Amino acid sequence: MDTDQFRSLGHELIEWIAAYRDHIGDYPVLSRSQPGEVAALLPHEPPLRGGQMDDVIADLERIVLPGITHWNHPGFFNFFPSNTDLSSVLADLVSSGLGPQAMNWQTSPAATEVEDVVMEWLRTMVGLPDSFSGVIADTASTSTFTALLCARERTSGFSQNGGGLQAERAPLVVYASDQAHSSVQKGALLAGFGAAHLRLIATDDEHALRPDLLEQAVEEDLAAGLRPCAVVATVGTTVSTALDPVAPIADLCERHGLWLHVDAALAGTAMVCPEYRDMWRGVERADSLVLNPHKWMGTGFDLSAYYVRDPEHLVRVMSTDPSYLRTTQDGLVRNLRDWGIPLGRRFRALKLWFLLRAEGVEGIRARIRRDVGNAAWLAQQVDAAPDWERLAPAPLQTVCLRHVPERQAGDEAALAAHNAAVVARVVAGSDYYLGTADLKGRLVVRVSVGSQPTEREHVAGVWEALQQAAALT
Amino acid sequence: MDTDQFRSLGHELIEWIAAYRDHIGDYPVLSRSQPGEVAALLPHEPPLRGGQMDDVIADLERIVLPGITHWNHPGFFNFFPSNTDLSSVLADLVSSGLGPQAMNWQTSPAATEVEDVVMEWLRTMVGLPDSFSGVIADTASTSTFTALLCARERTSGFSQNGGGLQAERAPLVVYASDQAHSSVQKGALLAGFGAAHLRLIATDDEHALRPDLLEQAVEEDLAAGLRPCAVVATVGTTVSTALDPVAPIADLCERHGLWLHVDAALAGTAMVCPEYRDMWRGVERADSLVLNPHKWMGTGFDLSAYYVRDPEHLVRVMSTDPSYLRTTQDGLVRNLRDWGIPLGRRFRALKLWFLLRAEGVEGIRARIRRDVGNAAWLAQQVDAAPDWERLAPAPLQTVCLRHVPERQAGDEAALAAHNAAVVARVVAGSDYYLGTADLKGRLVVRVSVGSQPTEREHVAGVWEALQQAAALT
Repeated sequence: MDTDQFRSLGHELIEWIAAYRDHIGDYPVLSRSQPGEVAALLPHEPPLRGGQMDDVIADLERIVLPGITHWNHPGFFNFFPSNTDLSSVLADLVSSGLGPQAMNWQTSPAATEVEDVVMEWLRTMVGLPDSFSGVIADTASTSTFTALLCARERTSGFSQNGGGLQAERAPLVVYASDQAHSSVQKGALLAGFGAAHLRLIATDDEHALRPDLLEQAVEEDLAAGLRPCAVVATVGTTVSTALDPVAPIADLCERHGLWLHVDAALAGTAMVCPEYRDMWRGVERADSLVLNPHKWMGTGFDLSAYYVRDPEHLVRVMSTDPSYLRTTQDGLVRNLRDWGIPLGRRFRALKLWFLLRAEGVEGIRARIRRDVGNAAWLAQQVDAAPDWERLAPAPLQTVCLRHVPERQAGDEAALAAHNAAVVARVVAGSDYYLGTADLKGRLVVRVSVGSQPTEREHVAGVWEALQQAAALT
Repeated sequence: MDTDQFRSLGHELIEWIAAYRDHIGDYPVLSRSQPGEVAALLPHEPPLRGGQMDDVIADLERIVLPGITHWNHPGFFNFFPSNTDLSSVLADLVSSGLGPQAMNWQTSPAATEVEDVVMEWLRTMVGLPDSFSGVIADTASTSTFTALLCARERTSGFSQNGGGLQAERAPLVVYASDQAHSSVQKGALLAGFGAAHLRLIATDDEHALRPDLLEQAVEEDLAAGLRPCAVVATVGTTVSTALDPVAPIADLCERHGLWLHVDAALAGTAMVCPEYRDMWRGVERADSLVLNPHKWMGTGFDLSAYYVRDPEHLVRVMSTDPSYLRTTQDGLVRNLRDWGIPLGRRFRALKLWFLLRAEGVEGIRARIRRDVGNAAWLAQQVDAAPDWERLAPAPLQTVCLRHVPERQAGDEAALAAHNAAVVARVVAGSDYYLGTADLKGRLVVRVSVGSQPTEREHVAGVWEALQQAAALT
C-alpha cells in the first residue's frame, strides 16, 4: 500500500474508530453472531489481485462488527476489564507504523529503553521496591509459565543444561490454591512437572490459600522424598478476587527455599492506589510477579508486566547466544530477547507511555477508586436484598452473587440451573454481558466491574436487570 | 482520552507515519543512539496528571525516532526482512481500536472466524494440503516450542497428566541440524528435554541436515535405551537459508514414530510462488509447521502461522477448562485459547486480510520473485569478483559472502577479523545495515535481501559499499 492510500484510508479509519467508540453503548455488548456466520461472508479464496481496499470500511461494518463482542462497552461485566484507552490505540499505531524490533537493544534502542523506563515507572506506581526488574510479556499465562520454568531451573540446579527435567530423580512439586488461575495448571503441566506434582491447596472461607495447609503439604512432600519447588500466590483470584496472604506464604517459601511467584494479573492495577497495597503485603519478597496493565489499567491488550528479583537467573534460563544475534553492545545493554520465551518483540512500551501521558497516575487512580466504589455499592445492594446472597468478599471490582428463591434454598443443583438461566436471560437482553463460575461447588453470578465507560448507572442497570430476570425465571 | 482528542491526534499521526515512510530512506538505517541516551530523555517519574498529549509528536521526533533502527528501510539487509506493509498497519489500528479478545469464539466471533478463514487462505497460498489446520502465534520461537511440547506429550503418552516429564525413565531425545535456529535449542531446553538430549546433526557442504547421520544418531540413541521423540527440519536456515531435505527426513520420522516439525519461518513465504515449492518437498508429511508472514510476506510483526495435522492433539496438550472460561458454544467452534500457550489473544488475522486485499497473492509473488532475483544477481557478482567468495548456495534471498584478500587466504582468524571490520565500516556509513554470522567456523557476511522498498539499485549499492570498504580495510 502506498502512502497516499494509507493517508486516505487511515484518516477514514480514525474517524470510524472514533465513531465506534462514541456509539459503543448502542451495540449489543455480546455479539449475536452464530457459529459460521462471519466466515460465510468471506471469500473462499484469497484475493489474487491487490487494490481491493475501497470496500474495507463497508466490509468492517458488514462482516466484522456484527461478530465483535464489545470489551470496551459500558455493559461489559464478564471476564476482566480489558480497557483499551484510545491513547494506547494511538501508541499501537505508532508502534506498527515504525515497525521496529525490540528483540536486541541494537535492533531499536528506543524500543528497549522506553520499556526500561516505563517498567520502572510502573514499578514505582504500584509501590514495588527497586529490587525488581521488569519486562513486558504478552499475557499473564506466559509470565507465570516463565516463572515456573525459572523456578524449575533454580531448584534443579539448571537441569536444562544437562539431562533436563527428565533426568531428575526426585520430582519437583508446585503449589497454588484451588482458586488459582488455569494458567498456573497449564504452566506447570507444560513445564513438565506433571499433574501429579501440582498441589492445589484448599482455601479458607474467603477463598484465600491456607498457609497451614500449604505448610502441611510441603512437609508431606519432603517426607515422601519429593522436592518442593515453587508456590504461586494469587492476589485477586479470577473467580472472586480472593487475596492469598503473601507474607506468611513468603515466610514459608524462605524457610524451604521455594520460588514465590505472585499472580496479581488483575489486582496489580489496583496497587496504583496506595490504600489497597495492604492486599499484597509481603510482595517485595516474591521471586517473580505478574501484573497486567492490559487488565483494568487501560493499555490495550497485550501488555503483561513481569517483574523478577534476580534478572541474571531469568537471562540464564532464557538466553541463547547464536552468532547471528550478537551485536556490539552486548553486555552493556538489556537484550530483551533474553528476558522471555519469544525472540521477536513488538514495541509495546509506547502503550503505557501514551496512557500515562493521557490519563496520568491520578487519572488511573480515580478510575480504579470509582470501580472499587461501584463494586462495593453493588455488594451492599446484594447484601440488603432478600432472596439474594453474596458468596465472597468483594475487596476489588468483582462481586460474586446469586439469587436464592426460597423454594430452592439448599438445593445446589437447582440454584445453579436457576442462576445460569437468570444470567442467560440478562445476556439475551443485549445491554449487559456477564458470566457464571464455579466457586467451590457453587455456581456464582460473576459481576466484574471496571470497563472504562462503566459508571454507577450501568452497575445499577445490571443489578436491576438481574432482579427482573430472577423474577421472571 | 476522549474521542475528540483521538480524532485530532490520530489524524496527525497518520500524516506523521506516512511522512516517515515517504522519507524512510533518508534516515540512518541503524540507530546512532548510544546506550542510555533515549532513557536519559525521559522523565524519571511517571506523569502524575494527564492531558500531556500536546507534545507527543515532538517527543516522538526528539526521543523515539533517533533510537529507531529502520526495519522497513531500503538499506536494511540484516536479520530477516520484517516488512510491515502499510495495509497491515491499518489492520492493526482497527484491531487495537475495537480491542476484542480472540481467546474464546464467543469473546469475539469475528476474531476467531477471520482467523479461521485467513489461515485457510494462507494454507492454500503456500500449497499445503487441507490436512493442516492453522492458528496464529506471536513468533516462530513460540510455534516451535509448542511443537516440541506436543511431541513430548505424544511420545510420553501424555506424561503431563501424570508424573510429568520428570517421571519418565527413558529420556526423550530431540534432533535438528547444527544450522537450526536458536529457538530450537531454547524450546528443547525449556520443554525439559535437557541439552544432553538435543542432537545437533552435522550438515552437508550446502549446510543441510544429513539424513544418514540423523538415522545413525537415532539408531545409537535407541541402542542406548533412549527414546527418539522429535526432529526439527529447517527449510531456509537462518544463517544461509539451507534446505534440510524434508522428504527423506519424513521417511525416517515415519519409520521411527518421531514427530516432524518443519521450521520454514522465513522460507515459507517463498512458497507463495509455486516454482519454489520443491524446496520443501515432503512438507505435507510434517506433524507441525511454522511460517511467519511477518517475515518477508508483509504483515507487520507479530504474525506467526502455526499449522498442525492433528489439532485434537494440540488442543489436548494446551487446553484447560475452568468454569469461568466456558461458553455456550464450546464444542461447536474453535476456542483459540486451546491452540497455544497464551490465554488472551489479539485480533491479528486482520493484518493478513488487509495485506492480501491491498497487494493480492500476485503482488506478493512479484515481490518475492524480485527479491530472489536480486539475491541471485548479488550471488553472481560475488562469484565473478576476484578476492570475494560465496560460502553457501543462495536459493532464496540471503547471500553469505566474504572478502578474501590474497594476503589472508587460508587464515580463518584473519579473515574473520577483516570481514567483521569491513561490515563495521559499511554499517558506519549509515546507508546499509547488515551483519555477520558464524557458518561452521567461518565468519560470513550475511546479506539478507527483501525489505519492501529494496530494489536492485540498493542491492548494487550495498555490494559497492562492501567492495569500497574492503579496499580501505
